[in-house]
Amino acid sequence: MSALEIVNRDPASQARTGRLKLARGTVRTPAFVPLATKGSVKSLTPDDVTGLGFDMVLGNTFHLMLSPGPERVKDFGGLAEFMRWPGPVITDSGGFQVFSMGHGTVADEVKGRRSKPEASQGQGRILAIEEQGVRFRSYVDGSEMFMGPETSMEIQAALGSDIALVFDECTPFHVTRDYTARSTERTHRWLDRCLEWHSANGPQEQLVYSIVQGGVYEDLRRESAAAVASRATGGIAIGGSLGADKAQMYEVVSWATDELDRTAGERPRHLLGIGEVDDLIRGVELGIDTFDCAMPTRLARHGTAMAPRPEKRWRLDLTHATGRDDHGPLVEGCECPCCAAGFSRAYLHYLVKAREFTVMRLLTLHNLYFVVKLMERLRLAIDEGDLPAVAAALRAGAAPWEA
Amino acid sequence: MSALEIVNRDPASQARTGRLKLARGTVRTPAFVPLATKGSVKSLTPDDVTGLGFDMVLGNTFHLMLSPGPERVKDFGGLAEFMRWPGPVITDSGGFQVFSMGHGTVADEVKGRRSKPEASQGQGRILAIEEQGVRFRSYVDGSEMFMGPETSMEIQAALGSDIALVFDECTPFHVTRDYTARSTERTHRWLDRCLEWHSANGPQEQLVYSIVQGGVYEDLRRESAAAVASRATGGIAIGGSLGADKAQMYEVVSWATDELDRTAGERPRHLLGIGEVDDLIRGVELGIDTFDCAMPTRLARHGTAMAPRPEKRWRLDLTHATGRDDHGPLVEGCECPCCAAGFSRAYLHYLVKAREFTVMRLLTLHNLYFVVKLMERLRLAIDEGDLPAVAAALRAGAAPWEA
Repeated sequence: MSALEIVNRDPASQARTGRLKLARGTVRTPAFVPLATKGSVKSLTPDDVTGLGFDMVLGNTFHLMLSPGPERVKDFGGLAEFMRWPGPVITDSGGFQVFSMGHGTVADEVKGRRSKPEASQGQGRILAIEEQGVRFRSYVDGSEMFMGPETSMEIQAALGSDIALVFDECTPFHVTRDYTARSTERTHRWLDRCLEWHSANGPQEQLVYSIVQGGVYEDLRRESAAAVASRATGGIAIGGSLGADKAQMYEVVSWATDELDRTAGERPRHLLGIGEVDDLIRGVELGIDTFDCAMPTRLARHGTAMAPRPEKRWRLDLTHATGRDDHGPLVEGCECPCCAAGFSRAYLHYLVKAREFTVMRLLTLHNLYFVVKLMERLRLAIDEGDLPAVAAALRAGAAPWEA
Repeated sequence: MSALEIVNRDPASQARTGRLKLARGTVRTPAFVPLATKGSVKSLTPDDVTGLGFDMVLGNTFHLMLSPGPERVKDFGGLAEFMRWPGPVITDSGGFQVFSMGHGTVADEVKGRRSKPEASQGQGRILAIEEQGVRFRSYVDGSEMFMGPETSMEIQAALGSDIALVFDECTPFHVTRDYTARSTERTHRWLDRCLEWHSANGPQEQLVYSIVQGGVYEDLRRESAAAVASRATGGIAIGGSLGADKAQMYEVVSWATDELDRTAGERPRHLLGIGEVDDLIRGVELGIDTFDCAMPTRLARHGTAMAPRPEKRWRLDLTHATGRDDHGPLVEGCECPCCAAGFSRAYLHYLVKAREFTVMRLLTLHNLYFVVKLMERLRLAIDEGDLPAVAAALRAGAAPWEA
């Protein structure tokens, strides 16, 4: 039986609403999952995050493994209990961070930045990718470390997440078809090792999600989706390189969800690391149930607010001097804690320039509010049968609370 | 008529409770005034600060002059309106920051650090201290700037604070008696120029506080207190070098308040930049009505919580590894937003080590809660006539909510 109870389906697309029933509670889907990378949603408390309307957060296995360490988190009853988060938690496998040290991040790829020879994470560095797993140097103390399928599952068991992701190789965009094919096959072998470890040792109440790889190659993506769907996992994530631009990304995701529609039953689907407004809308149409992305919170910390401006990628950069004397609100009609308090754009601009902590929090609250309202609006649209019109209005620049 | 309505007096000391009635509201005294140095209490929103129970915040004239600039703040109706703070605001004169560029800070002096030849504030540097005022280089853009009594009052008029402080020279600890005497006399001349400017141009509803200088010399302090008290100001602050240790600080303050008791009537008194727990208790006993200090909020940002530990200067350093596995609460019995949420010392220790923003906010809330509860307890003790017993219990390590 799937943990996802599908409530309504959009007749014009693959979109669906549902209730994802997890050990620590229920997630209303489609849902955005904010990042609690190192065990806190940066600048917020759990109360802030539940207050905004989020049901689940995502913790990062790689960072939490290095510090405070899985045993310490386990000693506190798991990541949710350690960070006092009252709902479900998803943990990634740690693979993305490990492979980012060698490959450069997928974000770098998508954005055409050259991959860095050294890690972006301090002194971390990949040493070898082998059948057994990956050897790398810790960015914390430079010590040699190892992560493989069993390691990742063992750490995630200690973190006690509601959803664990299997350990996969996250291939970058620039690798060859041949490398992608071999990597994807290894990812499938790693999937089996993850499931084997988990069925013998993992917490019963923890759902395991497999990960579709296959790069930007249709046959590989479809084969991977089918292969992954054939394994008895609680859910399925879509990962890896999704292409050079948004059009390609949507196509790559559609190959996977198309295949999953045929082979995966009603199991929940997660799209890894994607969260711009248009991507969320398209992802929902493609039948994605949950999304995670650093974008809303990271943008906030760098002084950019989310706003109904499709022509500007839904972004309002508060570092621009144009805001200096702007008495107006951040986003007209927004009722987030920042906008509701009546702060002017000029004040927020000034705080961003002055690098005051308060504004990072205010913009984080605003951006996450924008995203949670977007997802609420999309769910309502699916339930009420008017997703096409609502999606069109949102794409044309309606605010989530207006569309 | 004094803006301070004295409610009760402690028969055993100079302590008093009162209601300080200002343009934007009433401050219950004795009170601690959190710093909103650059227009925000770092990591907090105005709602957070009023929620903790504070009535007033202090904005920094020097920083706000450089950015966003007094004209911009004035255009928004004043600092309180610009930052959406619903209550009274006090602004310092900017003198402390200007003179810190030349002298090194008083904190450096007290702690025996050598004064820096260059400013601690970026590239800022003092160029000349003259009768007219001070010429210095901006730490923002290196441009040459000037601040004198009239400049400071003009900026504070634009900031529209409820209380403005006159421009004084903040002498460091190491200067000679002769320099202190000459500087104190100049400070008195500057006081007259401030009052002259304010009576001609200042906002009527803005209260002006003079500042007692005189260094660590009893005759100079007493003379300065008497000189300052003889001018018609709304209140009186005590500033400058207060000595090499706490015993000397208390003595220096007592010379001033002793003199003010005789000569200043019931006007309110502010002690500048002092805010450790024992200093607040002693300051209240010496008849101080309001205090400001960076300590509670700055400590929080550096991972130190305030706790009822007099033997450790009421500090609990969360960077210590001893907290790593501590399941206990930050401070037993504390009902601040951080402690009430049930975060363990181990989690907070981990967040401090990981430099997560969330913990700066949590510790800021905790430390300010600790201070606001301390002041509430002292006020209650004065009103109920048992200040000596309560002060003794607090000094012995009782928490404010237990004493």
